[in-house]
Amino acid sequence: MAEPATATQAAAPAVPQLKDELDIVIPTIRNLDFLEMWRPFFNRTISSLFKMTIKVPDGFDYELYNRNDINRILGPKASCISFKDSACRCFGYMVSKKKYIFTIDDDCFVAKDPSGKAINALEQHIKNLLSPSTPFFFNTLYDPFRDGADFVRGYPFSLREGVPTAVSHGLWLNIPDYDAPTQLVKPLERNTRFVDAVLTIPKGTLFPMCGMNLAFDRELIGPAMYFGLMGDGQPIGRYDDMWAGWCTKVICDHLGLGVKTGLPYIYHSKASNPFVNLRKEYKGIFWQEEIIPFFQQTVLPKDCTTVQKCYIELAKQVKEKLSKFDPYFDKLAEAMVTWIEAWDELNPTGSSVTNGKAK
Amino acid sequence: MAEPATATQAAAPAVPQLKDELDIVIPTIRNLDFLEMWRPFFNRTISSLFKMTIKVPDGFDYELYNRNDINRILGPKASCISFKDSACRCFGYMVSKKKYIFTIDDDCFVAKDPSGKAINALEQHIKNLLSPSTPFFFNTLYDPFRDGADFVRGYPFSLREGVPTAVSHGLWLNIPDYDAPTQLVKPLERNTRFVDAVLTIPKGTLFPMCGMNLAFDRELIGPAMYFGLMGDGQPIGRYDDMWAGWCTKVICDHLGLGVKTGLPYIYHSKASNPFVNLRKEYKGIFWQEEIIPFFQQTVLPKDCTTVQKCYIELAKQVKEKLSKFDPYFDKLAEAMVTWIEAWDELNPTGSSVTNGKAK
Repeated sequence: MAEPATATQAAAPAVPQLKDELDIVIPTIRNLDFLEMWRPFFNRTISSLFKMTIKVPDGFDYELYNRNDINRILGPKASCISFKDSACRCFGYMVSKKKYIFTIDDDCFVAKDPSGKAINALEQHIKNLLSPSTPFFFNTLYDPFRDGADFVRGYPFSLREGVPTAVSHGLWLNIPDYDAPTQLVKPLERNTRFVDAVLTIPKGTLFPMCGMNLAFDRELIGPAMYFGLMGDGQPIGRYDDMWAGWCTKVICDHLGLGVKTGLPYIYHSKASNPFVNLRKEYKGIFWQEEIIPFFQQTVLPKDCTTVQKCYIELAKQVKEKLSKFDPYFDKLAEAMVTWIEAWDELNPTGSSVTNGKAK
Repeated sequence: MAEPATATQAAAPAVPQLKDELDIVIPTIRNLDFLEMWRPFFNRTISSLFKMTIKVPDGFDYELYNRNDINRILGPKASCISFKDSACRCFGYMVSKKKYIFTIDDDCFVAKDPSGKAINALEQHIKNLLSPSTPFFFNTLYDPFRDGADFVRGYPFSLREGVPTAVSHGLWLNIPDYDAPTQLVKPLERNTRFVDAVLTIPKGTLFPMCGMNLAFDRELIGPAMYFGLMGDGQPIGRYDDMWAGWCTKVICDHLGLGVKTGLPYIYHSKASNPFVNLRKEYKGIFWQEEIIPFFQQTVLPKDCTTVQKCYIELAKQVKEKLSKFDPYFDKLAEAMVTWIEAWDELNPTGSSVTNGKAK
């Protein structure tokens, strides 16, 4: 069993160690002045940055990609990348050559912990990703690999090794990630509760994965992080991260990989327009009542031993079982296949074969 | 959907309202001086108190039961109640006539929150029990029914009503609830992390239920809270609450009832002797590697529509599938049946038929 104290002691040097192993992906149509606030945490580690437009503060090492770049790099396969929607961020995951990805929105600032100290979100994500997950049994003292915590009485010893962590899902202080109906009903609600916990989402349980403050191990789970077809020309928006989360969780469960949620918090500054959101979301609100049971019942065959194989199988099942609700799912299933083809074209080494155990 | 703000506003009067609906059960061989510290929180609500011996501070309304009382009340069925072990506390659940039970150990004191304020554990347990659980999908902002929280974007609207909460599992500051091997390896570890969260343990996920700071709805789940055969004359100890937890969770999942864990914290003052604990635990540490997969795979038939029917069915399956590991499980399966017979004898109204939906 990993010794939590060691993990913490290693934390200070952990970020520099990963300097060359992490890309930060930001989808935006604005200038990136918000990065100034992140400078103390990012400037040691950032090596590439993917965005859709212009001005980046001095001192950051970055790459910019716009639609023309996507079309040039992917050719006809560029059709799987959403137009004029933050769902395009998954293109950044695909062209990255790094082991880890951290993605944030351009209205996310550095949050403070209850003592007033600025939270190093990146460092916490890396801690989450470098320590195992425990999806098969719930630990009541939360992440047993944190400093000062452990497995409680009654936790089976055979499960204490845990499994590799593929995803670290962080949370948001200030503006919570609510859907349009909840935004409309509670326009003034702010998240002020700092919950000092990280926990593994149990195997077999789905969750709403938000793309605003998210890190993952690209080698373990990258090809599942497709943000779907949203925005321009599509009947739906604001379900890009949800789609990726459902697919990712089902595949992690199948391959014996872990998904953690909780710390770190970022400070989410702006509530998006609930009326605009409602227009983007309303089909999703309806469809998710069918999609979630679909994912809850999905079984992947044993011969799906890589993320790519799992994803192609999922695409097949989406076509078979969800197309009857709307022709959109036919198109989406095809885009899922295109996405994997494009991923493999840009990542030819087969580096995404997982270290986890197939169930 | 319940409005979290309302739940919180109702919290102050909630405890008095439940004054006549709650029993506090304490298994002990000591005087109950520790109750002095709980006086501000218990003296408004306590109405009965079950223990095995002598001195209770003035001003508490209580009932004492010792072994002779158990034998007198249950007759030959008293064999299902453990001898000289805190597992006997479940006798208190059985003779209670109240809707809610709160059980604590006699080395549990009032904890303080990070602001230094004394925590009203009873009030938090009641809040947990009175607000619904959400076992079918994970909410990343934890309990959506707490003040200032809600369901996040992507949480299916059809699941936001939740299900009735049957169990509220509280945690411990200072001495964590570790097994003997972990106690031996980390004798100085203390739990100092106050995690300001309550969450539903998802359907299909088992957890290590600790009996040290536990509340439940006796009408919804009481007959499943059997603490097994431990202590004198038995090959095992310190698995009483674990056994109850596995059975309870499987039955809650089947009947569509919720189990919450997290707040409230109590202050656990004394670490028990790890050498004594190791002697009590070692068979359990070995057996749980078989028992937990057994419970993970247990399926209860559809006609098990009450807790009692579920429990009798579980006893049958324990006999069939666990007896091969040790004759102890044969004896335990028989005691499980005796327990239900005794429960029904003392609680003849059928008041434990659940309000939840059978799956």
